Amino acid sequence: MRDISVFSGSAHPELAAEVCAHLGVPLSPTRVSRFANDCLEVQLQANCRERDVFLIQPLVKPVQEHLVELLMMCDAARGASAGRISVVMPHYSYARSDKKDAPRISLGGRLVADLLVAAGASRVLAMTLHAPQVHGFFSVPVDHLHALRELAAWFRRYDLSRTTVVSPDLGNAKEAAAFARMIGAQVAAGAKQRFADDRVSISSVIGEVADRDVIVLDDEIAKGSTVIELLQRLREFGPRSIRIACTHGLFAGGALKRLSDQEDVLEIVCTNTVPVPAAEHTDKLRVLSIAPALAEAVRRIHNGESVSALFDAPRDA
Amino acid sequence: MRDISVFSGSAHPELAAEVCAHLGVPLSPTRVSRFANDCLEVQLQANCRERDVFLIQPLVKPVQEHLVELLMMCDAARGASAGRISVVMPHYSYARSDKKDAPRISLGGRLVADLLVAAGASRVLAMTLHAPQVHGFFSVPVDHLHALRELAAWFRRYDLSRTTVVSPDLGNAKEAAAFARMIGAQVAAGAKQRFADDRVSISSVIGEVADRDVIVLDDEIAKGSTVIELLQRLREFGPRSIRIACTHGLFAGGALKRLSDQEDVLEIVCTNTVPVPAAEHTDKLRVLSIAPALAEAVRRIHNGESVSALFDAPRDA
Amino acid sequence: MRDISVFSGSAHPELAAEVCAHLGVPLSPTRVSRFANDCLEVQLQANCRERDVFLIQPLVKPVQEHLVELLMMCDAARGASAGRISVVMPHYSYARSDKKDAPRISLGGRLVADLLVAAGASRVLAMTLHAPQVHGFFSVPVDHLHALRELAAWFRRYDLSRTTVVSPDLGNAKEAAAFARMIGAQVAAGAKQRFADDRVSISSVIGEVADRDVIVLDDEIAKGSTVIELLQRLREFGPRSIRIACTHGLFAGGALKRLSDQEDVLEIVCTNTVPVPAAEHTDKLRVLSIAPALAEAVRRIHNGESVSALFDAPRDA
Amino acid sequence: MRDISVFSGSAHPELAAEVCAHLGVPLSPTRVSRFANDCLEVQLQANCRERDVFLIQPLVKPVQEHLVELLMMCDAARGASAGRISVVMPHYSYARSDKKDAPRISLGGRLVADLLVAAGASRVLAMTLHAPQVHGFFSVPVDHLHALRELAAWFRRYDLSRTTVVSPDLGNAKEAAAFARMIGAQVAAGAKQRFADDRVSISSVIGEVADRDVIVLDDEIAKGSTVIELLQRLREFGPRSIRIACTHGLFAGGALKRLSDQEDVLEIVCTNTVPVPAAEHTDKLRVLSIAPALAEAVRRIHNGESVSALFDAPRDA
Amino acid sequence: MRDISVFSGSAHPELAAEVCAHLGVPLSPTRVSRFANDCLEVQLQANCRERDVFLIQPLVKPVQEHLVELLMMCDAARGASAGRISVVMPHYSYARSDKKDAPRISLGGRLVADLLVAAGASRVLAMTLHAPQVHGFFSVPVDHLHALRELAAWFRRYDLSRTTVVSPDLGNAKEAAAFARMIGAQVAAGAKQRFADDRVSISSVIGEVADRDVIVLDDEIAKGSTVIELLQRLREFGPRSIRIACTHGLFAGGALKRLSDQEDVLEIVCTNTVPVPAAEHTDKLRVLSIAPALAEAVRRIHNGESVSALFDAPRDA
Amino acid sequence: MRDISVFSGSAHPELAAEVCAHLGVPLSPTRVSRFANDCLEVQLQANCRERDVFLIQPLVKPVQEHLVELLMMCDAARGASAGRISVVMPHYSYARSDKKDAPRISLGGRLVADLLVAAGASRVLAMTLHAPQVHGFFSVPVDHLHALRELAAWFRRYDLSRTTVVSPDLGNAKEAAAFARMIGAQVAAGAKQRFADDRVSISSVIGEVADRDVIVLDDEIAKGSTVIELLQRLREFGPRSIRIACTHGLFAGGALKRLSDQEDVLEIVCTNTVPVPAAEHTDKLRVLSIAPALAEAVRRIHNGESVSALFDAPRDA
Repeated sequence: MRDISVFSGSAHPELAAEVCAHLGVPLSPTRVSRFANDCLEVQLQANCRERDVFLIQPLVKPVQEHLVELLMMCDAARGASAGRISVVMPHYSYARSDKKDAPRISLGGRLVADLLVAAGASRVLAMTLHAPQVHGFFSVPVDHLHALRELAAWFRRYDLSRTTVVSPDLGNAKEAAAFARMIGAQVAAGAKQRFADDRVSISSVIGEVADRDVIVLDDEIAKGSTVIELLQRLREFGPRSIRIACTHGLFAGGALKRLSDQEDVLEIVCTNTVPVPAAEHTDKLRVLSIAPALAEAVRRIHNGESVSALFDAPRDA
Repeated sequence: MRDISVFSGSAHPELAAEVCAHLGVPLSPTRVSRFANDCLEVQLQANCRERDVFLIQPLVKPVQEHLVELLMMCDAARGASAGRISVVMPHYSYARSDKKDAPRISLGGRLVADLLVAAGASRVLAMTLHAPQVHGFFSVPVDHLHALRELAAWFRRYDLSRTTVVSPDLGNAKEAAAFARMIGAQVAAGAKQRFADDRVSISSVIGEVADRDVIVLDDEIAKGSTVIELLQRLREFGPRSIRIACTHGLFAGGALKRLSDQEDVLEIVCTNTVPVPAAEHTDKLRVLSIAPALAEAVRRIHNGESVSALFDAPRDA
Repeated sequence: MRDISVFSGSAHPELAAEVCAHLGVPLSPTRVSRFANDCLEVQLQANCRERDVFLIQPLVKPVQEHLVELLMMCDAARGASAGRISVVMPHYSYARSDKKDAPRISLGGRLVADLLVAAGASRVLAMTLHAPQVHGFFSVPVDHLHALRELAAWFRRYDLSRTTVVSPDLGNAKEAAAFARMIGAQVAAGAKQRFADDRVSISSVIGEVADRDVIVLDDEIAKGSTVIELLQRLREFGPRSIRIACTHGLFAGGALKRLSDQEDVLEIVCTNTVPVPAAEHTDKLRVLSIAPALAEAVRRIHNGESVSALFDAPRDA
Repeated sequence: MRDISVFSGSAHPELAAEVCAHLGVPLSPTRVSRFANDCLEVQLQANCRERDVFLIQPLVKPVQEHLVELLMMCDAARGASAGRISVVMPHYSYARSDKKDAPRISLGGRLVADLLVAAGASRVLAMTLHAPQVHGFFSVPVDHLHALRELAAWFRRYDLSRTTVVSPDLGNAKEAAAFARMIGAQVAAGAKQRFADDRVSISSVIGEVADRDVIVLDDEIAKGSTVIELLQRLREFGPRSIRIACTHGLFAGGALKRLSDQEDVLEIVCTNTVPVPAAEHTDKLRVLSIAPALAEAVRRIHNGESVSALFDAPRDA
Repeated sequence: MRDISVFSGSAHPELAAEVCAHLGVPLSPTRVSRFANDCLEVQLQANCRERDVFLIQPLVKPVQEHLVELLMMCDAARGASAGRISVVMPHYSYARSDKKDAPRISLGGRLVADLLVAAGASRVLAMTLHAPQVHGFFSVPVDHLHALRELAAWFRRYDLSRTTVVSPDLGNAKEAAAFARMIGAQVAAGAKQRFADDRVSISSVIGEVADRDVIVLDDEIAKGSTVIELLQRLREFGPRSIRIACTHGLFAGGALKRLSDQEDVLEIVCTNTVPVPAAEHTDKLRVLSIAPALAEAVRRIHNGESVSALFDAPRDA
Repeated sequence: MRDISVFSGSAHPELAAEVCAHLGVPLSPTRVSRFANDCLEVQLQANCRERDVFLIQPLVKPVQEHLVELLMMCDAARGASAGRISVVMPHYSYARSDKKDAPRISLGGRLVADLLVAAGASRVLAMTLHAPQVHGFFSVPVDHLHALRELAAWFRRYDLSRTTVVSPDLGNAKEAAAFARMIGAQVAAGAKQRFADDRVSISSVIGEVADRDVIVLDDEIAKGSTVIELLQRLREFGPRSIRIACTHGLFAGGALKRLSDQEDVLEIVCTNTVPVPAAEHTDKLRVLSIAPALAEAVRRIHNGESVSALFDAPRDA
């Protein structure tokens, strides 16, 4: 088989290094230059010819910089005659732009997928896409991992017999329902109402949460306002305990501190698909590493072994 | 502007005729031949050169026949130098194949979108796609209409003050939630549980349904088993009344009769995006016509007027 | 070299099994599901990653079902990161739609070729295409085998010294001419005439058939009406004997019985590119297996050996 | 409608001028420069922006020069923002490379079709393609005219009651059969035999030619050797008269003189799809103009009127 | 003709407004939203259907933000069924990444051209590309304007009889040579030398500059270090006067102040292809507006009139 | 690794043979047939299946013949299932058509790049492209070698202490500047002036040439008129000696003799990227072989080793 070469963009080099350590291969250096006119240039500083190239870059803030950088990494690898170019995007933030809910808007989830292919990507390895349909935005093969396994492993240390998994949004409750089944819990969801002033907010929680151990689960937490709003509704029902979990802990604008400041929140669990600055960590934060899972997926992709066998959610999830 | 030409495949000529009547343009004839080796050949029997061609075909049973026929209609129009080819698919059944929930499966929703473009489609007019993300499977512009407006208009004849809209599936409750807000009702959803034998079924209903006027809403009803299962759960809570509504009334395998036989179901409301054989109609069935909406959309597309202004759901739906 | 994986669609699993037996590799299972809305879903049930995948499916009745199934097999293999996807189509029925002889008709032979590529096919292995030009409809490499070798081997058991090969159609006599040269026979062809009522039928046979051992050769026999019509003309000249041969024995609408009922027809020879139901077999039918030829071609394609060296017709054929 | 602009390459400016005269539009000038390194550069010397551009160029000798010139005309028109680019190829010589009858050969008919599209052609107007299947080599719309109408009009001045149309090649007799039906004549064809030394030549004529008025019909006559060989066989049967007809009179290597020198050949009829140098004309040559037909087709294409209505051969031809 | 719609991204709305004022059409509003996860979403807030859409956005700092915004504007216009999408890029900064002068680097100039096409751009209007070859990086038509006309008009107010135009770089002196010919001046250029420590710098000026009125001309000035270095060399020759001119005045990192502080520099002339913050303006700065030229080009593109007739540099430039 | 197969077109078989000798692999035979209608057909006469195919063909006179032949070689290799197709173009003459300096002209450099890709080329190996930006015209990977190394090796036999490298054209002086730095020489360039009659010619030489050892360097010499004109200007300054060097010695129209006849020209040095007929050689001609460099590049491409490491010019060149 062709040899493997792994490169990291500037978005999350720690994760890339951890993946490489698990793989037992070196992380090849990437040089990103910025010219006086603010244009970027990328140089992959190891031979790519006919090699099996992996480019690791979650699309985190500053998203546009990291996106263009990633596109240039693809272009550089293609121009350097890479045998195959696998884009490893532990967090595909543009997946949230997945539908046209207003006239004449951009459809970022599909557009960025097309841009990656136009830049030379041969395949994509993604994690916990906002909606499973986003898989279909790509015209190249996608391996779609979930972090539910890692999250479930963590929560199994607790007594889950009276647990309810709560999705902040009724419309996106599929993942919460799957996770609930995975850990033998019940499921509930926030329900939104439109008010006279056309404002929409969470008006109630449907499902049983009174005197339950609640795990609020979302795929990504950015500003955290929806979770905060949900917590207010939840408290009206008197839950026994509250924990918060997500795959992508973006924690924008002081969200992590704001959530940690909620006295009744016992724990905030996320993974390291995106970097959380050490300075922002709080006592309540638990960051689970998905590097072993990514490394195993990369290894299998490189060796032509089945990835789905390991990671795919059960059909009825 | 270039003249308009409208053709219908063999899936639902009545709807095409009704659309044309509303548009005030003739329905141009299509000849579909089947050779002795079972291959199809399509001939569009009116001039297409530089014209604004609309091809109307919902992908209903037999789906594969109607799909290949539609692809050939596109090909024939392209080969005949059509100026623009708009595929009008009131029912895009393959939209249900929208995610990879098992290894090595086909992703029909994206594949068929690509096939239509490969066959020459310049744009698509669709109605109530199974998930809004399916929009992003197409590399050509899509106008995505909803029938919620028509359904809401129908139900407004009733007192809706104690109404709850119930989605059979928690994971797909977004549309039910939007419809509930549109008619000022509450929302609820069926929740599934995994049993020891790995069977998954609706174990409970989350949300308030006791003594409520329930409208069970789904995008499409085929065999109806999920709805039947939901009805059983609903009855445990004692709803005040039950009505069933959907956009696409496929009613496969005697589903319409089975649902109508449920004594406590007062009404089954669907639209004519797909044909319901007259012989299968029951007293409880109400078929709302979406032909006026389709005709208005076609007229606006042809004239270059905004379609979204009219039909799109509000942003927060 | 990457390992080989062979899958069969539902059109002709017996042939696929026979090819695999000759190859000495297992036939990997394919699951084809049909949903309540009549949509198909395909799952390839063996690892495809970076493997050399072969998908065997002749486009026989029901053609549209088998075509869409094949497209989905391609899509599933592509999504599963197959290294190469070779479509083995022992019978490409849409090859008959190879020209525009009426305005605004679909050109199925080219359209289906494009659809296969759009669905992910990397190459095609075909047999006895209706016209050799159909090769050029594909934008991917095609290996085009002929069954003339197998047919010739069969007929060489007879005294061929007074044999004339007769093509039913003057316009498609190229293959008959090639076959005649291969077995040292003469060639003749049916000639069509237009009558006052615009009907066209075989009015005469040009070439020497009186007191000759006639082999009627066509690429495919479906309803058999053309052959029956030709037999009537042939009898006017008093042939010494009549045999019928073709590569693709579709035998639609009782054709096999009708042909076998012709008393002066001694034998009907075809190959197993398409399945002939055992119940329809007659005493006069001889089915030659092309599985050894297909298996050898697959083996050579997989190993990167020359296929043309073995199977191609001589230049001047 | 957008205005029309017609340009001619250097292959056959007389025909282009004649077409423009019939259309009543000026022939816009084209500048073709050759640099010292033998590279070509084309400049279209009239505004193309958003205009309906027609580029007239038969692919005649020197074919490669004229082909590259035509590709550059397409490129120049595309770069100049032409609204539509129609390539008018009265003679598509590469159509003869329409099948793979030897291993590892180029398939010129398909390749050149792809090159034209890669260079920017939006559509093609062709005449008497070597095989009707060549239509399917193009991924853009093709209007395919025949000169049979013009040839038939000419021959109708003779008594056709005892006429046989003879195709030199049994395998390509379709057009001869169609022409025969068009003028109410019979059809015959040369049959080839393989000799011990592997040489292949016309060994006999199948069909009735003795004491008949023979019209030898081919799509193109280049060196004329096949026709000469056919004439030798024909004479063995004692035809009453012999005329030769073709659409494309290439007459390479003194072919016109050689054919005219055959005493029993009364007439050689071709069209002006390709230029015949005045110096080579002989008394027996009749050149029919297809400029009126091309002009009418261009006019209809420009106006969005049906071309097929006028020119297409009847279905059963 | 279809109506025109002009939108501006957030890079240079003043220029867009000025272009629209000259055109006499309104500037349609664009909404750019940034989500909590830092992803962008663009909404074009005026009807685009079948309209002639122009999107104005120079790629200035922050380049990546403006680039992704522009790609989304293209995507939104395409999804909204725009008839044609012309990207107006008064400054294409990535044009500087136009060659591979190191192994495995990205080729930004070509990559971004491909991304724009992948996002839906139908054509491009650019100004003073870094190298004329960059035109060929685009697979869609490009109209390439120069600001030399505007610059020449400005400098003609001076006595140009003893003027030398100096290019900082010998290797890119083509534009300087063309400008010199346009205003009847001589040309010179800085020549670089490699020193022992592998540093490269301008070692001398080749051409006549002593006692001449010097105009230093570059396509873009960013940090200005090259110009400063050139000024040092120039002074060794004793020029009579020094003026600086460029099309794109990026003036990064205080460059404008630094250049203005050079006492012997009389004037710094640029155009408004990129915005120069009012706060940074100096007494020596002259900003010429290219809005009239852009507006005239847009008008001509919209009307299908020749753009080259007006703006293109003479052949031998 | 897949085996290598090397084929040569008819443009420069001697170079191909020399490359193969250095590689130690046989040159596989290519058959090029020309039909009576002047169309070409190419047959690659060795197995290509899954092999690493290299096609060697500089685009020299007759350029159009060699270009179409090369396109057909690509097509034949693709149709024969080549694993990878590398086009080796030691001279890409169309690279000179690299910009639009007149309205509505073809852009040959980009067009031919696209044609090669349309015909199946997977990658390109080129030498001394007219401008480095031409690299970006290709959508497939390009390895771009320079002959400066070979030229420098030759000239290092002379005392270079008083040497000036002179570019005939100020606008294309980049390569001369790079070469000068490589051999530690100075650089100068011809400057053009426009005269009243709109004629443009070299009016002077900027840079120091008086009493210097001059090496006139251009990428290609065709008619040689520019060099002759430059020599006249140079003589006005009294150079100490004159040598001429170029990579591509096309020497059209007796150029070699004309240059050799200049008494003060001591030597004319070129490489064998293009064939120079033995009959035209003169005493002053030195032809350096780039076959070793091409062979080494082919070897490295085949083995997946870095090519840039060896051949690329230093960044600041």
